[in-house]
Amino acid sequence: MKKLINTPESVLDDALAGIAAAHPELAVDVEGRVIARAGGPRPGKVAVISGGGSGHEPLHGGFVGPGMLNAACPGEVFTSPVPDQMLSAAKAVDSGAGVLFIVKNYTGDRLNFQMAAELAEDEDITVETVLVDDDVAVRDSTWTAGRRGTGATVFVEKIVGALAEQGADLTTVAEMAKRVNAASRSFAVALTACTAPAAGKPGFDLPDDEIEVGVGIHGEPGRSREKIRSAKDIVASCMDALLDDQPLAAGEETIVMVNGLGATPLIELYVVFNEVAAVLAAKDVTIARSLVGNYVTSLDMAGVSITVCRADADMLSLWDAPVNTSALRWGA
Amino acid sequence: MKKLINTPESVLDDALAGIAAAHPELAVDVEGRVIARAGGPRPGKVAVISGGGSGHEPLHGGFVGPGMLNAACPGEVFTSPVPDQMLSAAKAVDSGAGVLFIVKNYTGDRLNFQMAAELAEDEDITVETVLVDDDVAVRDSTWTAGRRGTGATVFVEKIVGALAEQGADLTTVAEMAKRVNAASRSFAVALTACTAPAAGKPGFDLPDDEIEVGVGIHGEPGRSREKIRSAKDIVASCMDALLDDQPLAAGEETIVMVNGLGATPLIELYVVFNEVAAVLAAKDVTIARSLVGNYVTSLDMAGVSITVCRADADMLSLWDAPVNTSALRWGA
Repeated sequence: MKKLINTPESVLDDALAGIAAAHPELAVDVEGRVIARAGGPRPGKVAVISGGGSGHEPLHGGFVGPGMLNAACPGEVFTSPVPDQMLSAAKAVDSGAGVLFIVKNYTGDRLNFQMAAELAEDEDITVETVLVDDDVAVRDSTWTAGRRGTGATVFVEKIVGALAEQGADLTTVAEMAKRVNAASRSFAVALTACTAPAAGKPGFDLPDDEIEVGVGIHGEPGRSREKIRSAKDIVASCMDALLDDQPLAAGEETIVMVNGLGATPLIELYVVFNEVAAVLAAKDVTIARSLVGNYVTSLDMAGVSITVCRADADMLSLWDAPVNTSALRWGA
Repeated sequence: MKKLINTPESVLDDALAGIAAAHPELAVDVEGRVIARAGGPRPGKVAVISGGGSGHEPLHGGFVGPGMLNAACPGEVFTSPVPDQMLSAAKAVDSGAGVLFIVKNYTGDRLNFQMAAELAEDEDITVETVLVDDDVAVRDSTWTAGRRGTGATVFVEKIVGALAEQGADLTTVAEMAKRVNAASRSFAVALTACTAPAAGKPGFDLPDDEIEVGVGIHGEPGRSREKIRSAKDIVASCMDALLDDQPLAAGEETIVMVNGLGATPLIELYVVFNEVAAVLAAKDVTIARSLVGNYVTSLDMAGVSITVCRADADMLSLWDAPVNTSALRWGA
């Protein structure tokens, strides 16, 4: 294993110290493992909090800032954060208007966020929780009962972050989070396995001419192991999986993310985006907004995920609202 | 070789088509291989153009937009663009106020941009050229006479792009480009080699426990082959190389970029940034602004480059000016 780290045990602490050094606009509690906006809560605004295992950066810390998250709780690499982190984050950012927890559907994350919600209610903080479960590849997997939560998390955090910024109440914000999740589907393909620092070796074996189709963001198995093919053919498989699960009609508008899993060159992501655009254009489906880059990664895994959200006018308007985070920034 | 491509020959065309599909705010000439801002030249504004071999994305196409480049000319992967591309770009974006070519110091790039400048002058377009040569690792290398141009290109393009936006004339803009280059130093370390699509195999062999210290952005050899060490030790070597070449005094202000070479997880880049910040803090040198992420990549190479610019007040003010490109965006 070759990594730019000091020790496997210190990766998260060292990275959080680096985030604190690089981003003075954030309040980073290295010991307590909470990344929040500096300046505390804004009266009347619903606070939006997310979190999960580290190793998926920029998710979630890179999305903390005006127009998106109020705080993020990073666990150890590929390990759920503990309830104390979410409780501490909730206490730090709640203005009295309540807190939305955005939780990717992994068993550990669900349980720990649920416990945190109970602890927060004990302290008179109102909490709503939304589960993100957009990955159509498998139902029930190594780490999850039901579908895994992956790329749609970015869409939920952006759109709901904008809505909360506009002053919507907790019920309205939670409702929109569910709408965005329900409208989004993801599918991923891995070209290589990733290596978690504590494991010291790749999470699975993948021969030199094969890809894992439907892979999860921790290297969980997908639907099938297949020979590497052209980008066009790989995208066709992914889009078939997405559109089988959520058909799109001519004239519908979408937000599309072509997301690198960590070790994929950007030039390849644009090759993939071109194929995605061709598939949707052939169905007269419009890509109204898009992201191409590394947003939800799996450490050093090579591969790509594709997320398609069937977007209504409200979602597009909230998507366009100003956002000012380290990983997503426009209009601000 | 496993890559998300159709054929090695079509990578650039397919990626350019993807860029065009993802970024309607750009005018992408796929056939002519020019990425320009949509909307044509703005009267009185100096046009800023850069370019070079592909495989370093988001450099340069990701930096085209208000506040930064007017156009970028991508060559084939790791291959200089041809003079016709720069000429075509110059004709498309020159407003009559002249054109600045920002050229990384590689022999092919120098020669082709020089020829393009002569062709442009024949068409009554005034051209100034600035060479970027910030990499302190080696003097004269496989691809270069003199120092290689790497990370500082981002600083030059951002700062000079802002100055041109403010209406400065060509001489002033070119002068600032030289100042930023002269104030900047870079040094890189590779953990793995990269694989160019046309080559089909890694550009060099690197054992499982070794790193290439002082590597170039095409995998050119550096100063030494060493055993992998802690991030702290690796950063100490890099910073020694940077500060030997350009000592920094207590109280001085810098812009620092910790840049992933393509396959490095963002969490590791923050670990590295933390160590860089510690080295500079120990010298009472201020990191006034910073970037942490993938800005000048080498396809799927794992590794990091560190760029430090000794920044004066003008540079910091121009750094803060609005920029609106796919890879760098703030205040807009």
